Amino acid sequence: MTTAQLPPTLPQVSWSRRHLLGLEELSAEEIRTALQCSAYFARCSASGEPPRPLLAGKTVANLFFEDSTRTRSSFSLAARRLGGEVLDFHASASSLSKGETILDTARTIEAMNVDALVVRHRTPGAPHLLAQNLQASVINAGDGPHEHPTQALLDMLTIQQHRGRIEGLTVALVGDIAHSRTARSNIWGLLRLGAHVILCGPATLVSRRWEALGVEVSYSLDEILPRCDVLNLLRIQFERQQARPFPSVREYAHLYAMNRQRLQRARPDVLIMAPGPINRGVEITADVADGSHSVILRQVTNGVAVRMAVLWLCLCVAAGESG
Amino acid sequence: MTTAQLPPTLPQVSWSRRHLLGLEELSAEEIRTALQCSAYFARCSASGEPPRPLLAGKTVANLFFEDSTRTRSSFSLAARRLGGEVLDFHASASSLSKGETILDTARTIEAMNVDALVVRHRTPGAPHLLAQNLQASVINAGDGPHEHPTQALLDMLTIQQHRGRIEGLTVALVGDIAHSRTARSNIWGLLRLGAHVILCGPATLVSRRWEALGVEVSYSLDEILPRCDVLNLLRIQFERQQARPFPSVREYAHLYAMNRQRLQRARPDVLIMAPGPINRGVEITADVADGSHSVILRQVTNGVAVRMAVLWLCLCVAAGESG
Amino acid sequence: MTTAQLPPTLPQVSWSRRHLLGLEELSAEEIRTALQCSAYFARCSASGEPPRPLLAGKTVANLFFEDSTRTRSSFSLAARRLGGEVLDFHASASSLSKGETILDTARTIEAMNVDALVVRHRTPGAPHLLAQNLQASVINAGDGPHEHPTQALLDMLTIQQHRGRIEGLTVALVGDIAHSRTARSNIWGLLRLGAHVILCGPATLVSRRWEALGVEVSYSLDEILPRCDVLNLLRIQFERQQARPFPSVREYAHLYAMNRQRLQRARPDVLIMAPGPINRGVEITADVADGSHSVILRQVTNGVAVRMAVLWLCLCVAAGESG
Repeated sequence: MTTAQLPPTLPQVSWSRRHLLGLEELSAEEIRTALQCSAYFARCSASGEPPRPLLAGKTVANLFFEDSTRTRSSFSLAARRLGGEVLDFHASASSLSKGETILDTARTIEAMNVDALVVRHRTPGAPHLLAQNLQASVINAGDGPHEHPTQALLDMLTIQQHRGRIEGLTVALVGDIAHSRTARSNIWGLLRLGAHVILCGPATLVSRRWEALGVEVSYSLDEILPRCDVLNLLRIQFERQQARPFPSVREYAHLYAMNRQRLQRARPDVLIMAPGPINRGVEITADVADGSHSVILRQVTNGVAVRMAVLWLCLCVAAGESG
Repeated sequence: MTTAQLPPTLPQVSWSRRHLLGLEELSAEEIRTALQCSAYFARCSASGEPPRPLLAGKTVANLFFEDSTRTRSSFSLAARRLGGEVLDFHASASSLSKGETILDTARTIEAMNVDALVVRHRTPGAPHLLAQNLQASVINAGDGPHEHPTQALLDMLTIQQHRGRIEGLTVALVGDIAHSRTARSNIWGLLRLGAHVILCGPATLVSRRWEALGVEVSYSLDEILPRCDVLNLLRIQFERQQARPFPSVREYAHLYAMNRQRLQRARPDVLIMAPGPINRGVEITADVADGSHSVILRQVTNGVAVRMAVLWLCLCVAAGESG
Repeated sequence: MTTAQLPPTLPQVSWSRRHLLGLEELSAEEIRTALQCSAYFARCSASGEPPRPLLAGKTVANLFFEDSTRTRSSFSLAARRLGGEVLDFHASASSLSKGETILDTARTIEAMNVDALVVRHRTPGAPHLLAQNLQASVINAGDGPHEHPTQALLDMLTIQQHRGRIEGLTVALVGDIAHSRTARSNIWGLLRLGAHVILCGPATLVSRRWEALGVEVSYSLDEILPRCDVLNLLRIQFERQQARPFPSVREYAHLYAMNRQRLQRARPDVLIMAPGPINRGVEITADVADGSHSVILRQVTNGVAVRMAVLWLCLCVAAGESG
């Protein structure tokens, strides 16, 4: 399936989930549905035609307990471009500082007739707790190092747009697997759709335990490079690390940065992806980030389409309003 | 009057005030009008039908000099759901840090063709100062410990929805009366509509001087409990207190927290209210907050309806645009 | 040309610039076009009629790396009143703290199908760097002490509304010329339209080098006062100064503040302007700021109209969508 084959009309899909908490819980069929709808909204945006106001009358609250620019903005634009209202909740200015629990904060927001809460929290499972206790939809926008499902969906949509498929491709996630919710969500989604997944990075950041899931673990980017269709270069999340897991940034870059030399040894049609924000010179050099293999900005564009799809599926389709 | 008896059409009301600064200045008739309109908007929201864009072409600025999540969000949603534009002004990022006076800040915002300023400020009377000097409507969203009129209106709307009336009911405001603008606004509004009001709390937080207004003052929750139709449990506002006005939180909770034991000695139809954010285990225990007598989340829902009503009355009806 | 002579219909203009980076680069004809459109939008707002949704389907991102209330709000209202979506980017909460470059941040925002970036940055030339690397329109909302073109346009629109012309008028910019982007943009714009420009202030804040451009430099407000049609009183930007450039605020006010005594020696139709936020008692006394010669709040009102015009010109007219 490619976006070009999709009809220009809103796809007829079935979807029963009110919440999107992670990709681990989704079936291959559900992931395909989410990608199909995402591709539709990506085509709408690319065509310049305004999308139908599918979220008119609905309110989406951004409930971010960790700072974010791109994810929050992406959800916000997605909801508003579909005609929804967006309520931005700034955790630092919030009642939490007055001793309120996260669940009371969420219930209060929900009580203002809010239809969906987009939640980012440093604690794994925080969105799940809310989902169990709210009538509103809960969309996980990142729960600590656990899951970040819309990020993985936009990564997969980008692969699908450029390769026409995901099944059978070899996708390497390179870098800080240990702290990366993006990695976890990608692993579940890619495996479900039949990709071969390689986790690559320093031993301190990549555990052999992942092999039990059916992924390959490698400590040498140079070794796996020629086999990869896609390289997804994760950020070194300095802000999540207590002790530095490698001797120096320079050594990390020496072993794992995607640079011109490595690109020459990669497949000629390799896709270079990164969830961003990128550290130029650390996980990727400037020429590769800006080069013809890079689809980093396409990922950002797709992010809005994916969030449109997820909000529409969870708020409308799951409620029987298929548009 | 109950909401069920209201017609589904926008009520025909008369209202002449451009500003809502407090309930002390309102007549019983004006308060009834505000509640009648609030009940209408509450019905609209509950029905799921989009309300008419009564504020289309109007701009409402949130001018909060104190942090707030729920009140700011509630006003914001109220204005936007009626088709208005909302301008969010963050005091910390503002020109105030460059030496500008509050009045110059407000006049500057007004000069951008802003129709209403929703103002929260720690100084009692700050919204009144602005109202005297602006053409725009000024809505008091809390001025220090003085007034918080929309909070009291939403409390009264909630009582009315559940009891069908306010006249003749016994309503206790429990806790930190001294620092509470919610208490002050409730006192004016409830007395005007003929309720019996009891102020209950430690002597350091409840002054006998209130008796001159016609309210009852009590230092024992257990004593008044069997007589109350409504208990409105105010937050202990630790952030407003210089010296701690009681020996310990534990002693406060022992004497004044609403818990299961006290609930059993209350009237079987007692309403448990709290302006939030609640301190679970301080003024209210978790089981009571989440129990069948609690209407705390209904208060939040009603808050949006009350703010729709107040904005419509002050911006449209007072200007001769009755919809 | 005055606003009264403008037709009530959207003017037919030609405009080819996607970006507005400064007034230095604009021709007299371009400045006149921008002012003509601004006057049109000012008339729309004054008439109370909602403007046509010329920016429907377009997204404007505010990318402010320096705090701002009025300029950000003004752009935000301008875009939304024309039907555009606004994305507010808070630099402090952004990916910049994660090591992202400003260009990567801007490209990421652009990739979300954003049509214009309104940029404020402390580094002169930062918006120009972005303009060279983005497809989206870049509007300079202040780059350090360099340019602030929409501020100068709103100043000129205000003069034109009150005097009917700019050519031949004597306009004094008083105060902190050295640190003022408002001064620089005004100089370019006013000279281009044929005004006589006087820069007036302490020698530490006004350089004789400006004379090479064809402006007059004076260190005595009292000396130039009787000749001026317009006095634009710049803020002393204490926050931009390392060493204090004059002995005391009191001495500055003694020599350069516009007060009642000076007003009596000024031309009877002198216009008193200030970009704000004003320091009452420093560059202007309260009675003059609030007096009949002051057009300070009109400047704020015109600011929204100018930003509507600039967004429409750069996003629509330059792209061949003339409305």
